Amino acid sequence: MLIRAFVPAHITAFFVPRFHDDPLKAGSLGAGVNLSKGTNVFLSVETGTLERHIHVAFNGEPVKKDEAVISHSVAEELVPMDFTGEVEIWQYFDFPNGYGFGNSAGGALGTALALSYSFGGTWLRAAQTAHRHEVINKGGLGDVIAQLAGGIEIRVKAGGPGIGLVDNLFFEDYKVLVVPLGRLSTKEVLDGDVIKAIEAEGSKALEKLLAEPKPERMMILAREFAERTGLLDGELLELARELDKVISNPSSMIMLGRGLFALLKPEEVEKARDILADLEVPFDVVDVFMGKPEVGRWVG
Amino acid sequence: MLIRAFVPAHITAFFVPRFHDDPLKAGSLGAGVNLSKGTNVFLSVETGTLERHIHVAFNGEPVKKDEAVISHSVAEELVPMDFTGEVEIWQYFDFPNGYGFGNSAGGALGTALALSYSFGGTWLRAAQTAHRHEVINKGGLGDVIAQLAGGIEIRVKAGGPGIGLVDNLFFEDYKVLVVPLGRLSTKEVLDGDVIKAIEAEGSKALEKLLAEPKPERMMILAREFAERTGLLDGELLELARELDKVISNPSSMIMLGRGLFALLKPEEVEKARDILADLEVPFDVVDVFMGKPEVGRWVG
Repeated sequence: MLIRAFVPAHITAFFVPRFHDDPLKAGSLGAGVNLSKGTNVFLSVETGTLERHIHVAFNGEPVKKDEAVISHSVAEELVPMDFTGEVEIWQYFDFPNGYGFGNSAGGALGTALALSYSFGGTWLRAAQTAHRHEVINKGGLGDVIAQLAGGIEIRVKAGGPGIGLVDNLFFEDYKVLVVPLGRLSTKEVLDGDVIKAIEAEGSKALEKLLAEPKPERMMILAREFAERTGLLDGELLELARELDKVISNPSSMIMLGRGLFALLKPEEVEKARDILADLEVPFDVVDVFMGKPEVGRWVG
Repeated sequence: MLIRAFVPAHITAFFVPRFHDDPLKAGSLGAGVNLSKGTNVFLSVETGTLERHIHVAFNGEPVKKDEAVISHSVAEELVPMDFTGEVEIWQYFDFPNGYGFGNSAGGALGTALALSYSFGGTWLRAAQTAHRHEVINKGGLGDVIAQLAGGIEIRVKAGGPGIGLVDNLFFEDYKVLVVPLGRLSTKEVLDGDVIKAIEAEGSKALEKLLAEPKPERMMILAREFAERTGLLDGELLELARELDKVISNPSSMIMLGRGLFALLKPEEVEKARDILADLEVPFDVVDVFMGKPEVGRWVG
């Protein structure tokens, strides 16, 4: 039997990390967007062997345990200790790892949902398990709870599923442009000096967004956050300015990856495509994902 | 401009009411199912008149303010006081009012989402507004937060959106059979002597379901709850027993309406249809609604 789980990619627009010794109480405040592309996890469970084996593969390539620590930790917790057989967890990512699309959380949450569907449990327990191992292994702080909420989201109270609180913005007809250019280490940024600026600017942005909760405002605040923290500068900032010439809401930086994103009105899609093709940078145009993550038997 | 919101019908399987002076802290514990049919709210906003007018219609028929107290209360709060124009709220219900399908909450939440989409706000504020007026006017305690969660849900912490907590069960391939036979006044049941039995049996059922969180277990516990509280008896209980002869999970009573519901495996749908047609009772077979309520511009 093959189980499939889908978890949307999640882009953070701005954020305030909230660390805590209890990983379920750690999380982030901020805002972001869930995308119609993301992470697909396929789970295959076969009995009949004498031992309990768990295998993980990224994009079709088996990876070692220490290259998939979060997924293995989730699986160790959710596959019963007395189970004997082969558990294969195949994760496919629509965007590259480390580029700020929440792949780590997508893999963790998709794995937790698929395993719980197969071995028992509930959505909340699965989601909390994914969040805990994300936090413990510094995969991320707010992606899991944001992915569960869908849509354009505001994390108004920090914490994992069941503790944190996520609100959603109303919006109309926006497509999401993403320009994924490279990696940025979440861990290095959070351990660096920029963290103070992130906390100050992120808190201000959240307060302003809650006073005027609209996606247009979110993009203005995201861009201010990105520039004022110094995370968006140099060539990436120049690229954002080029892009802004043909769209009505400011583009901003993917937190945290070397890349940009923007909300496009339908009539702006062509112009944005043209300028990015001219500049020869990779890009994609996707929808906002409005629902909850999906899990079920795969009969593809 | 026409805005449409859809909110799934919600059937409660068993429950424990939790009253509180603060309506946002009032709510219920329990479990239930969200359906692919429910309440559609169409909102039309026209400016150009000199006064602020709010009109509500049920199934195409305009209703007076005192027949739609909850919807009017929600609208009074969410339509800005300085707005001048005509606000028309057209609510269409797939199931009859008062039969235990959460129509009251569906109308309140659909109205709140459509008005917030149109006039500004966030999902959480809209949902809290709907919940507050539901509680104040005794429309219901747990429907709004259950409808926001979708799927087969367990209310594990009582309270409105942002305060209460809802978990979801994993399940495969179930259809939902509903047999709507008549009204039952939530208010009369909650004000009566049966409330003590409801609290005792509902708490036990929740504890047992959390120990074995599966939809099959939920139906067994729902039936025990319905019989032990004395709410399910007489002809309705006889009908449930007839139905049980052709399906594998026990049917149970819609809380609170004069009606039954059951989870059907795909191969059981025909047998259930046949027996109910023979018995000449009204019924419908629908899907579990997995997503979040929907709101957007209507271009039907």
